[in-house]
Amino acid sequence: MPDSIERVNSATAPAATLDRIETPALVLDADKLERNVARLTARLESLGVGLRPHVKTAKSIDVARRLFAQGRGPITVSTIREAEYFADAGLTDIVYGVGLAPDKLERLGALAARGIDVMVILDAVEQAVAVAQAARAGGPMPSVLIEIDCDGHRGGLVPDDPRIVAIARILREGGVDLRGVLTHAGESYACRGGVGLPEAAEAERAAALTAAGLLRSHGYPCPIVSVGSTPTAHFARDLAGVTEVRAGVFVFFDLVMHGIGVCTIDDIALSVLATVIGHKPEKGWILVDAGWMAMSRDRGTARHPVDQGYGVVCDIQGNPHPDVIVVDASQEHGTVAIRPGSGAKLPQLPIGSRVRILPNHACATGAQHDQYHVVRGGGRQILATWPRMRGW
Amino acid sequence: MPDSIERVNSATAPAATLDRIETPALVLDADKLERNVARLTARLESLGVGLRPHVKTAKSIDVARRLFAQGRGPITVSTIREAEYFADAGLTDIVYGVGLAPDKLERLGALAARGIDVMVILDAVEQAVAVAQAARAGGPMPSVLIEIDCDGHRGGLVPDDPRIVAIARILREGGVDLRGVLTHAGESYACRGGVGLPEAAEAERAAALTAAGLLRSHGYPCPIVSVGSTPTAHFARDLAGVTEVRAGVFVFFDLVMHGIGVCTIDDIALSVLATVIGHKPEKGWILVDAGWMAMSRDRGTARHPVDQGYGVVCDIQGNPHPDVIVVDASQEHGTVAIRPGSGAKLPQLPIGSRVRILPNHACATGAQHDQYHVVRGGGRQILATWPRMRGW
Repeated sequence: MPDSIERVNSATAPAATLDRIETPALVLDADKLERNVARLTARLESLGVGLRPHVKTAKSIDVARRLFAQGRGPITVSTIREAEYFADAGLTDIVYGVGLAPDKLERLGALAARGIDVMVILDAVEQAVAVAQAARAGGPMPSVLIEIDCDGHRGGLVPDDPRIVAIARILREGGVDLRGVLTHAGESYACRGGVGLPEAAEAERAAALTAAGLLRSHGYPCPIVSVGSTPTAHFARDLAGVTEVRAGVFVFFDLVMHGIGVCTIDDIALSVLATVIGHKPEKGWILVDAGWMAMSRDRGTARHPVDQGYGVVCDIQGNPHPDVIVVDASQEHGTVAIRPGSGAKLPQLPIGSRVRILPNHACATGAQHDQYHVVRGGGRQILATWPRMRGW
Repeated sequence: MPDSIERVNSATAPAATLDRIETPALVLDADKLERNVARLTARLESLGVGLRPHVKTAKSIDVARRLFAQGRGPITVSTIREAEYFADAGLTDIVYGVGLAPDKLERLGALAARGIDVMVILDAVEQAVAVAQAARAGGPMPSVLIEIDCDGHRGGLVPDDPRIVAIARILREGGVDLRGVLTHAGESYACRGGVGLPEAAEAERAAALTAAGLLRSHGYPCPIVSVGSTPTAHFARDLAGVTEVRAGVFVFFDLVMHGIGVCTIDDIALSVLATVIGHKPEKGWILVDAGWMAMSRDRGTARHPVDQGYGVVCDIQGNPHPDVIVVDASQEHGTVAIRPGSGAKLPQLPIGSRVRILPNHACATGAQHDQYHVVRGGGRQILATWPRMRGW
C-alpha cells in the first residue's frame, strides 16, 4: 500500500481546503479507508482466504491501489466499462459479477483478447449455450463461474440444481473454461446489529461448497469457490473450502452497514461536504446545498431501528452533531433537523457554514460525484483529488 | 422549435438501434417531449404568462433548444455549473433557483461580468448583506429575487414577513438590482390524481402577489413575479399578476407526475432500455441489467395509491406490459415481477430480450446517465444522441 497519498496528488492546488472548495463535494478520509482495508484484509488472512474486492463502490483506481499497491487484482466489477477501466489501469484479474447478457460477449471477448483474465457469471443453460457458441465461432472468450443461490435473494441456481452440471457440460463441449462457482449472501443486508450474520456467512459457504462438490463429483475441477458480501465477510467464522471472498462497501462503510452491525459511525470514510443556505427556525430546519443529487435517493436506513434520513450531519472535521440528520431532500436542497423524538438541540450553523454528511449507502452517494477530495483524520486540507469513473 | 432532430445528430452511427446499443441506456422519445412542451407552452400562453423552464431535469442544451429554438432563455437552473453550461450555449437569462451560499458569489459574479443576466434567490438578511458587500467591493453582481414561502414546504419568507422589506432596503443601499419575488409550491407534490392542485396554484399565486404588493407599497418596483412547479403549472386557472411560471419535469414527465394526476403514462418521454439477464420462475422474477444505478434510488411512488416500484416495464417500443414493474433493485440488477395483487401474467422475455422501463422520477433517473438516445414514436432507430451535463 502506498505510504503517501501526496505521491499521487497531481490535480489539486496546494491551498485547497474543506473551507474553500465548491460544495457539495465528496470527501474521503484516507485514514479510515486504510483502516477499513487493513481490518478486512487481516481478518481474511487469519481465515486463510483471499479477498476479491468489488470495485463498484469506489470506481477509482486510486482507491483500488489502496487494496493492491502492486499486482493485477483480483477484483470484481459490476459493469463492462468498469472492467475496461480497471484493465487499462493494470488490474487484469476480473470477475464481472452481474448475470451475463449475451450481447455483452463482444466487449468481454475483446478484453479476453487483450490477455485480461476476465470471468463472467451465469445461471442459465441459454447463457452457457451463448458463450459456447461464441467460443466456437473463434477468438478468446471470458472464463465462467456458475452463479449459486444461497439465500433466495436474487439470481443463481440452488446448490444441488442439476442444471449446474448441464451448464458445465455445455461449457466444456464449447471449449469454455469453467473456473468454479460464485455466490452472494444478499439477504445478509436484512440483518440488524450483527445478529444472524455468522449464520448467513456459514450458509453462503455451505451453498458454494455444495455446488463445488457437485461439479467435482462430475469431473469438473472447480478451482474457484467465491463467496461474499461485506456483512458476511466480517462475520464468517470458518471459510474452509472457500478460495476467495468478495466485498465492496467495506472500503468506505456507511450508515446501512452501521445499522447492520458491521461498522461504527466512526469507521465511515465517505461524506458529503455541504454549505448552509437557509434557516426555518419555526420548523426547526437548517437548509444545506446537498440534496438528493449529492446524497443520492438512497434511504437504506428507512426500515432500520434508527432511521438516518438522508444522512448524519457532522461538523467540517467529521464529528457527528448529536442526533442531527438530513430529514428531507430535494434535488439540490437538504433539510437538516433533529432526529424525531430526540431532545437534542440544533447546533448554531449560520448561513455559509459547512457540514459533512455521512451517507446511507456509499455506493449510491459516491455515484453522484466525479471525484473524491481526500483528507486525513480531522484535517481540512485536501491532500489529493481522485477521479471516479462511471457509465456502462 | 427545430423541425428535425436529424439536423443535430452528429454523434451516432446511422445503424444504431434500440436492439443493438449497450444497455442500460437512457431513451428519450422526442415526439412525447415535443408534445409535452407544446402542451404547457400553449396553456401558459392562453393564461397570458411566460414560461421559465427549470433545466435541471434534462441538463441538456439539445432539450433546452426544444423550448427555445432561438433566444436567450429564460431558464431556471439548480447549480452554478448548469448556469455556466447553459450560458456557454447561449442561454443567458438565468435564475439560479437554490438559496444563495455567499461562497458562490465569486462564480456568479464572473457570470454577471460576462454579461449573463443571472439572478439569485435569497430569504435572509445575512445573504442580502453578503451580496451588497460583494457589490460594494466592485464588479458585477447577480440580480436578486426574494424567495417567498407559499406552503411551508422548504425555504422562503412568508409573504407578509417584514424582513422582505428589510432585505430590499439592504440590496438597494448596496446597489444590487432587486428584480422581484419567487415562490414554489413544493407541497403540490403531495396531491394525488389532480385533487387540490388548482387550489395549490392559487395559493402560490396569492403568496407571490402579496409579497410583490408589500415590496411595491414600500417603493420597490418588483418587475418579476415568479411562481411554479410542474403540478401547479398544469392546473392554475388564473395567473393574473404573475409574470413567469417555472416548471421542470414537464418536458419528460414520470410516474410520480402520473400519480399526482398531471400526465398519462403515455406522456412519459423518458425510459431506460434494459436487457433480460436471468429468470427465477419459482419466485415470479425476471432479472434485467438495469438496477438502481440506471434507474436511481428514487421511490417517489412508494406512498402513492399505485406503487410503481422502481419503474413500469414496457416492450422495446415503449408499450407497457400490463402490471409489470421493477419490484426491487440492486446496483446493476433490476427484479421485474407482476405488481403485487394483480392477476396479470409475466410476459415471455427470454434472456437477451429487451425492455424499456418508465422512471418514477425523470430528474433522478436522467442524472444517472451521460446521454439521451433519441427515438420517435414506436421507432427503434436512434435518431440522435444528446449529451447531459452534471456536477456543481
